[in-house]
Amino acid sequence: MKRRDRNGEIWDFEKEMSSNNHLTSKDGVILGLDGGTTSTVCICMPLMSFSQQLPEPLPILARAVAGCSNHNSVGETAARETLEQVMAEVLYKSNSNRSAVRAVCLAVSGVNHPTDQQRIMDWLRDIFPKHVKLFVQNDAVAALASGTMGKLHGCVLIAGTGTISYGFTEDGREARAAGAGPVLGDWGSGYGIAAQALTAVVRAHDGRGPQTKLTSSILDILNLSSPDELIGWTYADPSWARIAALVPLVVSCAEAGDQVANQILHNSVKDLAESVKAVVRRLGLCGEDGMDPFPLVMVGGVLEANKRWDIGNEVIKHICESYPGVHPVRPKVEPAVGAALLAWTFIKKEPEAKTAT
Amino acid sequence: MKRRDRNGEIWDFEKEMSSNNHLTSKDGVILGLDGGTTSTVCICMPLMSFSQQLPEPLPILARAVAGCSNHNSVGETAARETLEQVMAEVLYKSNSNRSAVRAVCLAVSGVNHPTDQQRIMDWLRDIFPKHVKLFVQNDAVAALASGTMGKLHGCVLIAGTGTISYGFTEDGREARAAGAGPVLGDWGSGYGIAAQALTAVVRAHDGRGPQTKLTSSILDILNLSSPDELIGWTYADPSWARIAALVPLVVSCAEAGDQVANQILHNSVKDLAESVKAVVRRLGLCGEDGMDPFPLVMVGGVLEANKRWDIGNEVIKHICESYPGVHPVRPKVEPAVGAALLAWTFIKKEPEAKTAT
Repeated sequence: MKRRDRNGEIWDFEKEMSSNNHLTSKDGVILGLDGGTTSTVCICMPLMSFSQQLPEPLPILARAVAGCSNHNSVGETAARETLEQVMAEVLYKSNSNRSAVRAVCLAVSGVNHPTDQQRIMDWLRDIFPKHVKLFVQNDAVAALASGTMGKLHGCVLIAGTGTISYGFTEDGREARAAGAGPVLGDWGSGYGIAAQALTAVVRAHDGRGPQTKLTSSILDILNLSSPDELIGWTYADPSWARIAALVPLVVSCAEAGDQVANQILHNSVKDLAESVKAVVRRLGLCGEDGMDPFPLVMVGGVLEANKRWDIGNEVIKHICESYPGVHPVRPKVEPAVGAALLAWTFIKKEPEAKTAT
Repeated sequence: MKRRDRNGEIWDFEKEMSSNNHLTSKDGVILGLDGGTTSTVCICMPLMSFSQQLPEPLPILARAVAGCSNHNSVGETAARETLEQVMAEVLYKSNSNRSAVRAVCLAVSGVNHPTDQQRIMDWLRDIFPKHVKLFVQNDAVAALASGTMGKLHGCVLIAGTGTISYGFTEDGREARAAGAGPVLGDWGSGYGIAAQALTAVVRAHDGRGPQTKLTSSILDILNLSSPDELIGWTYADPSWARIAALVPLVVSCAEAGDQVANQILHNSVKDLAESVKAVVRRLGLCGEDGMDPFPLVMVGGVLEANKRWDIGNEVIKHICESYPGVHPVRPKVEPAVGAALLAWTFIKKEPEAKTAT
């Protein structure tokens, strides 16, 4: 393997391990990786039987965590280094190695186009032996699978710092909406909500907009004395997550009755619901009469942890008005497990996999 | 001077010059500097008589141009180096030196707060001899002065890559609106218009928005084959000017009857007019009955060079509905000359300056 020569030290542990020759899982293992803009999680599972129901709880051999692996954020080289290291770590912790791997599903953010997918696939091909099945997906797909336990059917809505909707039909058609980042109008995201709140403070200050409780709340928490200073604060650090961290404050202001904060959250709900509805409509997930049931997996900080003003519930209400068959799911496992279940589902469908049942 | 010791080579030309001792202007010179995000222009003028009308054309001794001097974009050190070098160059070209300078007006973007102003002032104080009068302003103030020939009265609307409105009353009160950059809602700017157009293409593609001629126009000019590739294009380079360069294309689509492009331009007009009206209202530039005349200086690519769809004219129409006394001015001199005229106006008002008349 070319890659092993270039970056051998990452895989050094395998030499000692193979001489010991007591691997954990005789039928092999599968890897699931969820690579986001803030962190990367990789999990290792034994290859489970294809003929039976999934065991509960799922058998997780090991879990490893690393930093950002979005190539748009940290560059190609750093992203690959992170991905390779976290996969090596999880295999080491599982007392396993690359020869034991049956399949890998890498679900990473920033995969927006078949060329992104192919580039990562080519690189991944150099790391693993030929028999290993490789799958590369947008991280939203792993989030969907975490709610459907590996089945690619239905829609997922992610709303954290960013937002995306992604859906699949049972016959394999897929569609996405939003997920294009703040410049390209993801206004329902955590970043979008917070940026609108900061904008509302600036507009109240310069006379373009109504006064709002957001002004004192935001200046207090950022320890600034005037809205003029918000400009310097905003551009001092381009991190989207730093701005998105203001969302709970917008929710508090809305709960305290602030009209401006309320309007921002209502706009966000409308935007998030619209992106789900676009996916459902394009895929016909709701059937011809619009009444068919379909799962909607809900993931991300914006959809969770609200008190009275519950953005997630409001989004579901909106969608329900158009598609009463929507069945909201809050996943019980993390997206990296979703990725591993995807890998398992993919190889289950391949004819030669049947021999492993 | 501390600064001379630190960065002497910039000012080396002065030693030879003072030994020759034949300076151009016996009454001294004034410097006007317009420092924007794309370029920095500095001009040198002889000190003109305070008792007479401004000569026409204005006597410009020299003009020097450099790159970006916005400290938010290139950092403090690089910004200062650029500013100092461009001032040295214009003095060298004018066959003059720092002792001959009577006043400097530095009008730079990114001055949003008194602390920004003071920091630049402190640094500038180290460069020039004590007798030199120094003024630091936001670059919008120089743009206003370029339309009013140095008089600080009325309002300026700048709409290029970014946008800002800035106004002054005759008794010295000032106010601004917008100018907070794309994160903080400057949607009427060139960047804002183009980002909305890109968003419209993404929304048409993923089913959230109506189809638009913007799709084929934008994909053609960027040489992309699918809207999915817009995400990679957008985040490959964070330059706001690169995105704002798509404005003429949005105007063409609107002129060709595209509803989505038309709506984006109408929103931009509304946003730009709102920021002017906020300044006019806060300063009472329109008088108590709303009918008083006031100049509105219009600057920047978004307000110029349109054909049938003329954003600048539409903005004026909007403002006229509220404030019929608005008197639009398209400046005949560049903002750096406006800055020099400001310096001249400032020292004219100071008691000791009278002796120079």
